[in-house]
Amino acid sequence: MAPSQEGPKEEKTGPAKRPVMLDLASYSSGQRLRSLDLSANILTLTWEDGAEVTLPALWFRDNCPCGSCRHEETLERRYLFLDDAPPHLETAELVGEGHLRLRYADGHGADFDAGWLRHHALDLPASLEADPPLWGAEHEIARLSHARVMGSEAGLSEWLGVILRDGLAILEGMPAEPGEMLKVVRRVQEPKPTNFGPTFEVMTHPKPVSSAYTAMGLEPHADLINYAVPPDFQVLACLKNDATGGGSVFVNAHAVAKALSETSPDSFEVLAQTPVEFRFHDETCDIRHQAPVIELDRSGQVRRLRFNNWLRGTLAAPSWRAAAWYAAYAELWALVRDPRFRVTPRLKAGEMVVFDNVRVLHGREAYDPTSGGRHLQGCYLDRDWILSRLRLAERASGQDR
Amino acid sequence: MAPSQEGPKEEKTGPAKRPVMLDLASYSSGQRLRSLDLSANILTLTWEDGAEVTLPALWFRDNCPCGSCRHEETLERRYLFLDDAPPHLETAELVGEGHLRLRYADGHGADFDAGWLRHHALDLPASLEADPPLWGAEHEIARLSHARVMGSEAGLSEWLGVILRDGLAILEGMPAEPGEMLKVVRRVQEPKPTNFGPTFEVMTHPKPVSSAYTAMGLEPHADLINYAVPPDFQVLACLKNDATGGGSVFVNAHAVAKALSETSPDSFEVLAQTPVEFRFHDETCDIRHQAPVIELDRSGQVRRLRFNNWLRGTLAAPSWRAAAWYAAYAELWALVRDPRFRVTPRLKAGEMVVFDNVRVLHGREAYDPTSGGRHLQGCYLDRDWILSRLRLAERASGQDR
Repeated sequence: MAPSQEGPKEEKTGPAKRPVMLDLASYSSGQRLRSLDLSANILTLTWEDGAEVTLPALWFRDNCPCGSCRHEETLERRYLFLDDAPPHLETAELVGEGHLRLRYADGHGADFDAGWLRHHALDLPASLEADPPLWGAEHEIARLSHARVMGSEAGLSEWLGVILRDGLAILEGMPAEPGEMLKVVRRVQEPKPTNFGPTFEVMTHPKPVSSAYTAMGLEPHADLINYAVPPDFQVLACLKNDATGGGSVFVNAHAVAKALSETSPDSFEVLAQTPVEFRFHDETCDIRHQAPVIELDRSGQVRRLRFNNWLRGTLAAPSWRAAAWYAAYAELWALVRDPRFRVTPRLKAGEMVVFDNVRVLHGREAYDPTSGGRHLQGCYLDRDWILSRLRLAERASGQDR
Repeated sequence: MAPSQEGPKEEKTGPAKRPVMLDLASYSSGQRLRSLDLSANILTLTWEDGAEVTLPALWFRDNCPCGSCRHEETLERRYLFLDDAPPHLETAELVGEGHLRLRYADGHGADFDAGWLRHHALDLPASLEADPPLWGAEHEIARLSHARVMGSEAGLSEWLGVILRDGLAILEGMPAEPGEMLKVVRRVQEPKPTNFGPTFEVMTHPKPVSSAYTAMGLEPHADLINYAVPPDFQVLACLKNDATGGGSVFVNAHAVAKALSETSPDSFEVLAQTPVEFRFHDETCDIRHQAPVIELDRSGQVRRLRFNNWLRGTLAAPSWRAAAWYAAYAELWALVRDPRFRVTPRLKAGEMVVFDNVRVLHGREAYDPTSGGRHLQGCYLDRDWILSRLRLAERASGQDR
């Protein structure tokens, strides 16, 4: 690997003179490096507040921000450490406002920004979704102003942050008109299309393809769990809701799963270990997925409940296991119906709810379609895009992380 | 739950007189039931070939195909077993061409089709993707005729089956024109949009946002592993490839992971247990995901390699772990480059490859953009939709499963 032709460079504009990291986020921690120690090709960095990190020379070389190691247009890494001799750090020094300058034995070198280093080596970005609250009936759903979310990056950032933290939030003061939902949603991404289309109309359909399109009550459930990866978030904008009945129900699925694991660990295990087929089919698709009702992540934590009586297919299991599974499922179902774990807002025209289809089950009371109208517009969003848009909003308002 | 008003019913048309299951797939196993045994509310069924299954009464009641237990238009389950007294099977008998008739103590009853029962209680649908072959350099990529895939459901079914089995297949004899890729892809689904758009053009771009849009060689990699759930399949249609270089590389990621687990189990563990951040960002998005390079499923089997040097972000780990991780990653990388695990076709104009972005890494040789042109059109597809379309194609050609 040839040494960078231009050598270490600093940004020439602005007061901070921060090293260029080929990164659009600024990662300004406000913390300068105070000292460093280079020993046996391992570098220890200490920031002004005492925070410290120790990393091998290869870590720095692999993350070299210079224009030959990272593509200046795509911002992607070009350096292939497998093709290079192991890097040997010759010198490390503090430069400018507490930043880091490195020089390797082969002549290569670069400057690292102290804020960037702190973010990438020390302060991990998991905080965006860490430890979601296990709310229950006492939870007051956050309500935010439609105008503020539409009008500023800070408002958008606040809204997306609440959605990620609580798993649901309501926008209010929105025009109750078709098309308004898309205007809000497109601040984040195009709706994620499914077999129900890019958007859908929740109202009484003359020839329903889903129970959602009837006036029936809908028990709490997760949507589209017949997909290997169901949509992460659902949006429902209320255009009309003046029929008798038709209130909404939101259940904290993680709180329900936790309760089951505490009261009936055996039932929890049966539901976490027995795959069931989920299925939706009509003339245009036949989408099926086999998975346990309680879906765990790699670390054994509850990820989602695949709970949806309409989409639940047929259990294929020997008799003794089928009997145990049905008993466990009945226990879980009773907890899903338990008022302790649910909030029951009634959406009004001009309100829009967004909720996490992984962490939150949703349902509705039956309504009487002869007593008035009920019309929601809906669509789905991806977590990746909500997180991405939140980062852009934070970047725009100087709160990068 | 009131008894079904119409009682058990049989389809009146066609020679088979099979019970109506409110299922669009026919599940014709060709096997009749031979005998049954009802004892202590548990039913044992035996088919003509001796296959046998034993299930509790609740299983049958929960899967009751009658129009009051299952919605006749949505085909979704309506029966809520939590609200019902435990069902008691009063009688079970064989009717018609070896089908099953049940009557419960509360008067409810229904007929079950023998083929449907066999499929749902005994023959599981996992066969569509079971035990994918761990091919290596000796693998001959299946080549199928564009005309046949476009012209018949059977051709489409064959193609999708090969893609799911081998993880890659080439269509040949396709017009080398823009827009032809979409015609084929739309036989399955609309392309899955990403931050690169619904489709993308792999050629030398004047201002590339990705290394793919340069003439650089591309080491084998998986696409978009900065998403929590990267796209399942990638499509690349070749419109032109007459530059010097530019051959394709496909590496069996599962074979590579298996080799690492055998030769270096410790390195395998480090890569399977250490999360790394993957990231792509530009002016319009900042999409990041933290996950181990070797991603295991819930049963501890390798699901995917998050292997992509451009999208690999920064490892946040203490020094000793960083050193071990880099050593393990170098071992994996050497195996990714090992000719044993790769096939190296050279796509010609009028050929289109589809490959599994979970099981297969892809790359290309560098090419000389002054020696000729290279232009591929690409897009992504979901596994759910490939499976769904395969089921429809099989349904249309009478091979349901």
